[in-house]
Amino acid sequence: MVERLESGACIGILGGGQLGRMLAVAASRLGFSAHIFDPSPDAPAAQVAARHSCASYNDLAALRDFAQSVDVITYEFENIPAQTLAFLSELRPIQPGVAALEISQDRLREKAFLNEIGLKTAPYMAVRSAQDLAAACAKIGLPAILKTTRLGYDGKGQVRLERLDDMRAAYETLRGAEAVLEGLVAFTCEISVIVARGMNGVVACYDPGENLHQGGILRTTQIPARISAAQRVDAALLAGRIVNALDYVGVMGVELFVTQDGLIVNEIAPRVHNSGHWTQQGCTVDQFEQHIRAVAGWPLGDGQRYADVVMENLIGDDIARVPQLSQESGVSIHLYGKKEASAGRKMGHINRVVARPAV
Amino acid sequence: MVERLESGACIGILGGGQLGRMLAVAASRLGFSAHIFDPSPDAPAAQVAARHSCASYNDLAALRDFAQSVDVITYEFENIPAQTLAFLSELRPIQPGVAALEISQDRLREKAFLNEIGLKTAPYMAVRSAQDLAAACAKIGLPAILKTTRLGYDGKGQVRLERLDDMRAAYETLRGAEAVLEGLVAFTCEISVIVARGMNGVVACYDPGENLHQGGILRTTQIPARISAAQRVDAALLAGRIVNALDYVGVMGVELFVTQDGLIVNEIAPRVHNSGHWTQQGCTVDQFEQHIRAVAGWPLGDGQRYADVVMENLIGDDIARVPQLSQESGVSIHLYGKKEASAGRKMGHINRVVARPAV
Repeated sequence: MVERLESGACIGILGGGQLGRMLAVAASRLGFSAHIFDPSPDAPAAQVAARHSCASYNDLAALRDFAQSVDVITYEFENIPAQTLAFLSELRPIQPGVAALEISQDRLREKAFLNEIGLKTAPYMAVRSAQDLAAACAKIGLPAILKTTRLGYDGKGQVRLERLDDMRAAYETLRGAEAVLEGLVAFTCEISVIVARGMNGVVACYDPGENLHQGGILRTTQIPARISAAQRVDAALLAGRIVNALDYVGVMGVELFVTQDGLIVNEIAPRVHNSGHWTQQGCTVDQFEQHIRAVAGWPLGDGQRYADVVMENLIGDDIARVPQLSQESGVSIHLYGKKEASAGRKMGHINRVVARPAV
Repeated sequence: MVERLESGACIGILGGGQLGRMLAVAASRLGFSAHIFDPSPDAPAAQVAARHSCASYNDLAALRDFAQSVDVITYEFENIPAQTLAFLSELRPIQPGVAALEISQDRLREKAFLNEIGLKTAPYMAVRSAQDLAAACAKIGLPAILKTTRLGYDGKGQVRLERLDDMRAAYETLRGAEAVLEGLVAFTCEISVIVARGMNGVVACYDPGENLHQGGILRTTQIPARISAAQRVDAALLAGRIVNALDYVGVMGVELFVTQDGLIVNEIAPRVHNSGHWTQQGCTVDQFEQHIRAVAGWPLGDGQRYADVVMENLIGDDIARVPQLSQESGVSIHLYGKKEASAGRKMGHINRVVARPAV
């Protein structure tokens, strides 16, 4: 267990994308410096960090130098190679801990873990061969989604099967990778809960947001979600159960399907989450500062929601809308400093405050 | 006139203290990188900037390299040497312009300018000799305050004269520097207006804050100020007159005394201002982003106030209160990452939201 880090300490962050960038800024607000580890010289987080180790995740000398310069290590993405984690964990504390990371790196382990602690998931079966896939299609029924167990994000590494005729082509897209067939869930909406757990075991949840995906990529998160009070409490309890079971420290994103039969966990992400960006304009302490507080051994901060917000991602060419958006009132702009706007690339987001209830 | 800078451009900032730090973070939100010029290796802003030129303001090679790497130059403090400005202004646009800077660097020029555009100041007289001081004391009356015309801040470079007997000792503290004797103003409160002017000439004011100073240093700013609606409008009109007269681009802090005879200008600062820190928790677009928008040729943003806030500076040992403050709800903490907490040194600030009117 890390002592409470004092202002002036250095937070090491694996991954220098937009999440690392906003974590680094949050760290600076608490007087910490940030050291980013990312192989890209153009890593967006490097522009707002005291140091940037621009090296491969396999470069042990660079990893050692990184670890020795920081007081605690955290990360902005879950697909960190196992050897990198093993090496770093000998040198400095890693928060959230490696257990959560290993579970979330593998869809099969993640679903098994969630079921073990009594939470519902979509029906699923492991697919390690063409025969497995045929059996899974028979059992789960179609349509269903075939996903690689590892390294998927933003709709990548997955293919939808409508008919049995699609099976062969779908299997070939895997190129031999282990996969899981997931049944479709009839949901009324998708929500996510951003939950935080401090080193002292205190758990705090942000109000759930309602997500709209397009083409596998999060498009908007609207807060409050259009769910009942009971569903809101269920979501928080469920998220709390996950972080408690993992003895988790930091912020986690939990994606849920709201169905007639209750809440079903879609997936968990052991990090700050795109669907929690609204907290920047909706709460005193946003998800980025909350995460830094947790990994630095500080008490969790005030995450009470005080505004109704719609977060919208600026994807690819959406960046061209910024001149217009910059003239609208109630709109907070957050750009990531990425040089090239390719299709599907998250270039920034906006938080549009649509109402401020009195307090 | 600079074109609207695109995301990805670089903002050069002279001075790397806390104001530069918060400007650099605001620049990052709009997708800009920041390049800090500051002679101190420990400059707080360097921790959140893409580049830091750690060199003297007289180092022409370093200044040239700095200017050539940026798209526009701005600054966080007004006491930039004249030669530095002259050199840089040949290479890149400097915003706010040099005219405002030169006026605010010299208390005599500043007061003369304010009077010229029809604004009231405290009674004053230039003091260039012991005889001048005697004449000024006779005309203005005591008590009064003797201030150096240049390089004063946070109560430095000034001494209060209570009686004629103090005159000689007070004059000696000047060590031959040009000074101004200012009469005391009987004020009911001190307020400040943070005003912004865009490249297109649009002017926007934040709601005035009420300041409490202790030992010459700002202690708290409370918003809203306890003034009448008429005074609020007067303050905004007056601030607008100043930035218009200077063809100013950027954010300016205007400190005012509220008196029975109307508003009297205490001083102006051609930069973001400590008394505007409340905007971070009170407005969609805070003073730092507003300044970056202006100097980057963007439209000014939404500075409408949506919360009642008390900003409190954390000075010297106040930093020891952070563990307690981090547990309070409604409190946003902003620390500057300074290594040593000496007496009178601004280490951070908090914004405490005390009410949120419904919108």
